[in-house]
Amino acid sequence: MGKGRIEAFSDGVIAIIITIMVLELKVPEGFDLASLRPVGPVFCAYVLSFIYVGIYWNNHHHLFHIVQKVNGATLWANLHLLFWLSLLPAVTHWLGESHMAAWPTALYGVVLLMAAFAYFILVHTMLRQHGPDSALARALGRDRKGKLSVVVYLAGVVLAFVLPWVSAALYTLMAAIWLVPDRRIEHMLNE
Amino acid sequence: MGKGRIEAFSDGVIAIIITIMVLELKVPEGFDLASLRPVGPVFCAYVLSFIYVGIYWNNHHHLFHIVQKVNGATLWANLHLLFWLSLLPAVTHWLGESHMAAWPTALYGVVLLMAAFAYFILVHTMLRQHGPDSALARALGRDRKGKLSVVVYLAGVVLAFVLPWVSAALYTLMAAIWLVPDRRIEHMLNE
Amino acid sequence: MGKGRIEAFSDGVIAIIITIMVLELKVPEGFDLASLRPVGPVFCAYVLSFIYVGIYWNNHHHLFHIVQKVNGATLWANLHLLFWLSLLPAVTHWLGESHMAAWPTALYGVVLLMAAFAYFILVHTMLRQHGPDSALARALGRDRKGKLSVVVYLAGVVLAFVLPWVSAALYTLMAAIWLVPDRRIEHMLNE
Amino acid sequence: MGKGRIEAFSDGVIAIIITIMVLELKVPEGFDLASLRPVGPVFCAYVLSFIYVGIYWNNHHHLFHIVQKVNGATLWANLHLLFWLSLLPAVTHWLGESHMAAWPTALYGVVLLMAAFAYFILVHTMLRQHGPDSALARALGRDRKGKLSVVVYLAGVVLAFVLPWVSAALYTLMAAIWLVPDRRIEHMLNE
Repeated sequence: MGKGRIEAFSDGVIAIIITIMVLELKVPEGFDLASLRPVGPVFCAYVLSFIYVGIYWNNHHHLFHIVQKVNGATLWANLHLLFWLSLLPAVTHWLGESHMAAWPTALYGVVLLMAAFAYFILVHTMLRQHGPDSALARALGRDRKGKLSVVVYLAGVVLAFVLPWVSAALYTLMAAIWLVPDRRIEHMLNE
Repeated sequence: MGKGRIEAFSDGVIAIIITIMVLELKVPEGFDLASLRPVGPVFCAYVLSFIYVGIYWNNHHHLFHIVQKVNGATLWANLHLLFWLSLLPAVTHWLGESHMAAWPTALYGVVLLMAAFAYFILVHTMLRQHGPDSALARALGRDRKGKLSVVVYLAGVVLAFVLPWVSAALYTLMAAIWLVPDRRIEHMLNE
Repeated sequence: MGKGRIEAFSDGVIAIIITIMVLELKVPEGFDLASLRPVGPVFCAYVLSFIYVGIYWNNHHHLFHIVQKVNGATLWANLHLLFWLSLLPAVTHWLGESHMAAWPTALYGVVLLMAAFAYFILVHTMLRQHGPDSALARALGRDRKGKLSVVVYLAGVVLAFVLPWVSAALYTLMAAIWLVPDRRIEHMLNE
Repeated sequence: MGKGRIEAFSDGVIAIIITIMVLELKVPEGFDLASLRPVGPVFCAYVLSFIYVGIYWNNHHHLFHIVQKVNGATLWANLHLLFWLSLLPAVTHWLGESHMAAWPTALYGVVLLMAAFAYFILVHTMLRQHGPDSALARALGRDRKGKLSVVVYLAGVVLAFVLPWVSAALYTLMAAIWLVPDRRIEHMLNE
């Protein structure tokens, strides 16, 4: 089965998710600088989520770039990932509006955690199809960044009930680590 | 007429439908666990509809994969299917908010029924173009799953006025049956 | 310049327009049959607009199918058409909510008229590039349906202030005329 | 790395941005001509932003048309541009609703300025990959229009606090200058 349509569909869903978050940016009531202030925290949460969705799109792009075909299980593993990503706009808005209260901060981490988990399932579904000697397997290597993410998100969820600001810092730090371009697959392709 | 653009358009519409349902997930009023509770039923309805839209996308993907060309009648049969699918977010939200009241549960089943019916029309429009000896005709076979769906959705609509929970269980059961990958077309292609 | 990306962009915008109208279908307040009733007129307006957007997508599909390349003027003529189509959801909702009051019915006709006009400009921009002997020119012929549309929409706008129901009937009639598949280009291609 | 998927993703995001602005066009309360009047300023702001997004799509189209491949840095520079464009619907609505108050007018200019800056970064990221002798470098030339834009948007932001109508006129003038087709790249391709 070709990969063209699963890429197109994923591009569509991710494009909508990343843009829909804008709708959460409510227009201020007044028209002066003071009325802009309450939008601030939601805006920061929006920027963080924009970067996370961008990271997922980049990784998704690289992941499907290195394989030639997909099977039915991959279609569903991909939909499962899109499901968790599609929850990001709602938890982003809750996080921003609550000024980082405990539950919204924890739930934001849960969605990040489940998305990371769904990505892990997707990668391993594709690995099962392509085998341990495939370009995909070599490109992934030991996937240290993926494993670190799970630990960091988990810590974020737990800490949200004690020090939500530390959770937010952890989420931001992990985004920064991912932003540093993941050259594994690019290196592979150039060899 | 090539099938590329009808696939791209359908991917776009289905991607929007599946993501728009997120917008129905209203952010809770408060910021504690208790304020999350009313979101629960809407969330469950959202998950069910997400799976249904995913099933339709998968089946749509397989259906157009096996044919080489489309005609004008197929364009309209496809739009007719997209029309019913595009009503899913609205009835999903009504179902979730009503905590499975009779009419919302029945209407949800009506939309599932009409979408199944529209899919049936789409398949038969394509069969008329490709003939009874086509790969499509052999892949479809007797379409037992499609016929079972119609019966189950009909039962769900009727039962909604007596035992709405049974209707919801039927809708969920049918989604589970569809989730079991439909290997008919995949088998065909591998032969 | 290739036509692939202008097709993809138009597909995206039209897919969003056709799906966004769903968001206008507000979920009823109550959960019984009576609470569904106010949704009725909006639903009818939605169906009509869905068919109109479907017609435009079909015609757009055929139009770009017959040409091989586009120029900068076509990009803007196409954006101009998309602009008027993107106003359809708003006027559809106004029409439905007003139960066909004079101004909403007239404005709906104005948007149909401007979209028809924008389509006319788009076609003629492409004709200027491809010349009077092109396949496009032969396929279009005298474009009687396009000219009839303009007259019918104009009549609808004027009659909206006297007999809005007649306007709505005219809009519906014209949609039905367009729905009868336009075989001109298909014929051309088969020859 | 191929450019197909970055084009498709950008098309998706830009298509959603341009269409989402419609959602900001609130349906009037009443159903007569008077109730349409408050929609007027928002409508004008919408038209201006529609043209700006159209200009960015056109320039983006031309920019990616002239290159053959993209790298990881381009993916992120492109996402950065999409981020600022995705803020346009919100500031458009704020501008329209405020009837051009100082802060909304200034903020609109800030978003235009940041989008122009992001486009500049994108172009220069691509130039670094392709070198000063590439078709891209020759097509861009001295980029006088891009530099003029930055000056005009900056002037608009400052003037918003004194003469907001002049700012709006400047934004409109700059859109008109961009609308005049940028034939640089088209010329290049024809040579």
